[in-house]
Amino acid sequence: MDLQLFDKQVYADRRQVLTQSMANDGLIVLLGNEESSMNYKDNHFSYRQDSSFLYYFGLDVAGLAAVIDTDTGEALIFGNELSIDDIIWTGVLPTVSDMAALVGVSQTRPYNDITHYIHKAQTTGRKVHILPPYRPENKIKLAAWLNVSLQDVADHVSVKLIKAVIAQRVIKTPLEIAEMEKAVSISVDMQLAVIKNTRPGIKGYELVAKANEVAIAANSRLGYPAIITPRGETLHTHYYGHTLQDGQMLLCDIGAENAMHYGGDLTRTVPVGQKFTTRQAELYEVVLNSMDHAISMLKPGVRYKDIHLAACQKLVEGLSQAGIMKGDPAEAVAAGAHTMFFQCGLGHMLGMDTHDMEDLGEPYVGYTDTLKKETAVFGLKSLRLGRELEAGYVLTIEPGIYIIPELIDRWQAENKYADFINYNVLNTYRDFGGIRIEDNFLITGTGSHLLGKYLPKSLKEIEGLKG
Amino acid sequence: MDLQLFDKQVYADRRQVLTQSMANDGLIVLLGNEESSMNYKDNHFSYRQDSSFLYYFGLDVAGLAAVIDTDTGEALIFGNELSIDDIIWTGVLPTVSDMAALVGVSQTRPYNDITHYIHKAQTTGRKVHILPPYRPENKIKLAAWLNVSLQDVADHVSVKLIKAVIAQRVIKTPLEIAEMEKAVSISVDMQLAVIKNTRPGIKGYELVAKANEVAIAANSRLGYPAIITPRGETLHTHYYGHTLQDGQMLLCDIGAENAMHYGGDLTRTVPVGQKFTTRQAELYEVVLNSMDHAISMLKPGVRYKDIHLAACQKLVEGLSQAGIMKGDPAEAVAAGAHTMFFQCGLGHMLGMDTHDMEDLGEPYVGYTDTLKKETAVFGLKSLRLGRELEAGYVLTIEPGIYIIPELIDRWQAENKYADFINYNVLNTYRDFGGIRIEDNFLITGTGSHLLGKYLPKSLKEIEGLKG
Repeated sequence: MDLQLFDKQVYADRRQVLTQSMANDGLIVLLGNEESSMNYKDNHFSYRQDSSFLYYFGLDVAGLAAVIDTDTGEALIFGNELSIDDIIWTGVLPTVSDMAALVGVSQTRPYNDITHYIHKAQTTGRKVHILPPYRPENKIKLAAWLNVSLQDVADHVSVKLIKAVIAQRVIKTPLEIAEMEKAVSISVDMQLAVIKNTRPGIKGYELVAKANEVAIAANSRLGYPAIITPRGETLHTHYYGHTLQDGQMLLCDIGAENAMHYGGDLTRTVPVGQKFTTRQAELYEVVLNSMDHAISMLKPGVRYKDIHLAACQKLVEGLSQAGIMKGDPAEAVAAGAHTMFFQCGLGHMLGMDTHDMEDLGEPYVGYTDTLKKETAVFGLKSLRLGRELEAGYVLTIEPGIYIIPELIDRWQAENKYADFINYNVLNTYRDFGGIRIEDNFLITGTGSHLLGKYLPKSLKEIEGLKG
Repeated sequence: MDLQLFDKQVYADRRQVLTQSMANDGLIVLLGNEESSMNYKDNHFSYRQDSSFLYYFGLDVAGLAAVIDTDTGEALIFGNELSIDDIIWTGVLPTVSDMAALVGVSQTRPYNDITHYIHKAQTTGRKVHILPPYRPENKIKLAAWLNVSLQDVADHVSVKLIKAVIAQRVIKTPLEIAEMEKAVSISVDMQLAVIKNTRPGIKGYELVAKANEVAIAANSRLGYPAIITPRGETLHTHYYGHTLQDGQMLLCDIGAENAMHYGGDLTRTVPVGQKFTTRQAELYEVVLNSMDHAISMLKPGVRYKDIHLAACQKLVEGLSQAGIMKGDPAEAVAAGAHTMFFQCGLGHMLGMDTHDMEDLGEPYVGYTDTLKKETAVFGLKSLRLGRELEAGYVLTIEPGIYIIPELIDRWQAENKYADFINYNVLNTYRDFGGIRIEDNFLITGTGSHLLGKYLPKSLKEIEGLKG
């Protein structure tokens, strides 16, 4: 084992900031993840540590939990040592206290001591702050530690802790940005491998194989399940059985998670053959214009929701030029007519998680107490990020046009948005598919910075890669 | 989506056999698996359906559960239909009743109806048979359905159902064997890609990348985490950060799980450079002789435990010729002295699971009521399979020699097995590493059949691949 860690002071400093935010308010409990069983207990998925645990305690090892005492600032790591039987199977690994020392923690205890430790704190009237569990085994543990039912664990989640953690993690430090540059550059190499191998007759899974090969050979892995499909209008498809055909487009949405667990998230849409068709090229340019406009707006102080809406308007303008939409573009967006084509949001925060900190809750990550998510509005309810940008945010810009036949049929039957949508024209695009283009940006003091190596995105550049 | 299924009659026939084994004894509940969350709820590991669910109901789809009524033989599938919102994200998928029809099931219900369905059966005094859950979310569900505490779920597991399921699944049918031939042949291609790329200077993860590429490009995946390491004595290491060096051996234990979820499990140990050293070659031959002897014993009616012990004796004979062991080989094995070098078992059942049906319990899969596992004996406690072989079993043969410095130090300090181990000689092998060779076999009416394409295993053949 070879733990990938920042300097121990990094973790100590992060914990100190958190302790100050939560000062004199009891205990903070951060749960590391267990192994996840695939088809029997000891056959595991590739291990993934919890991101907040990684942020404050760094240790990419299953079976740990940590407590920070906000009165004293002291941190403890709970974990079990290996037996000789374990060593035969896993080799010699550092002890829990050796590992703890690497992240600036001097106190360690056996794992099961945490139950008593927390119960004792509770009996002396101290608060116990927890983050929301997203894995069932962690929910089971927290219920036991807090002595509440499984159903009641959610009521014990600490919004104060959630906000304090987000406030820290949302601003990426130079150390983190350096990791994200690496992760995005590996993602670029993955994209290039897929694009160069995209051709008529190849199967989706053969391209997934290329993406995985590049990621793993760079000591990374896919940070989320690949979307590699000629049916790009299906936003989250993980079916790879299609045989690609000339005339189709391939939508490829992939990203590396590097050894330090920072990720990239890139999308390109490319012709399966040598060139886009005229119709494909026309709508590709519409998406690209929308993207470029959105990028030009990136800077501190601008609300991401406004960038999203401006990007939507660019899409509508382009779709109107193509004869698919009509009427005043601003009115169309205000009415929501663009959601026929762009059903989701322009992007999201990016970091150790692809949807960064989504486990802590979108209302806190992407929105604020004053700007709330519009959860009842189709389109905006899928906008993961709305808040005003600050220097240090890392996020995606990923506009798209998705032609979903089932949505055409449903809304046309209702005559919905008939003032803005030329259904007759749109119906000639029923089999068009989908286009998305996505890059990753750091918000700087004055604007934005494209993360990672440049990945071609213009029509000409993309077609050039296929030559 | 493109469901990979056998003919629906296959599933109906399997359920009928199970119903007959469990006749007039209440309900059988088979739980399909959910998606497993990686670092936030909606970021999932690659989906893996439960193997018993696949065996009886075939559907490789998250969020299903099934009930078989052993009085009537009727089967029900519980699952929820997609909304239009879901379709935007996932595309149009078949309905639950469409899917159920593909596996010969005519009755479907919304997922949550299963709670009431089971409670009702319980109130009318009917038994409810469940298999042991290996995922925490399934344990939570079963507790709710059976109206018992999480701790008490284990007490409600049905040994009768476990035995009935194992009795069926342990005998592979021609349809299954055809899938296993494919899976093992893909595993062979994975091995060849790794072996041909093994050279000084390459990183372990670069070889893992090759294995993944071959698997995924064949519409398969790794059935278990790869073991690709120059420290082959560490039985279950998943660390891939080593830079390979001339003079080392690489141990590669990998297997494909194909689209129908049948798996291969192959190991080869190869020189990192062009040739084995003299010491490596000598012990390689010892392992290969042990393997060949074990293979020659494979036939119905022979106890696998006896094959294991015979293979151990061959190892001891070879280690004695090399001057590392001494004394009478049979006595050494009877005393357990071989476990200094071979701490684990000779092999295990193979099927949809790498350790086939391990979730149902080794005492039932690998042993019988009359032949129990020796859980207190080092070595034998890790022998997953002991029972008498029958035609239709599929299993691995995987002897090895593993030199574990920590075990040498511990046992030498205790003077353990001093009559059988030449510690002075052994200590000159401290950095030797480990060797394992593994192939997969079907037990036939008269002997055994090697599954999949032939993968070179002799010293000469292996060195030839590196040329």
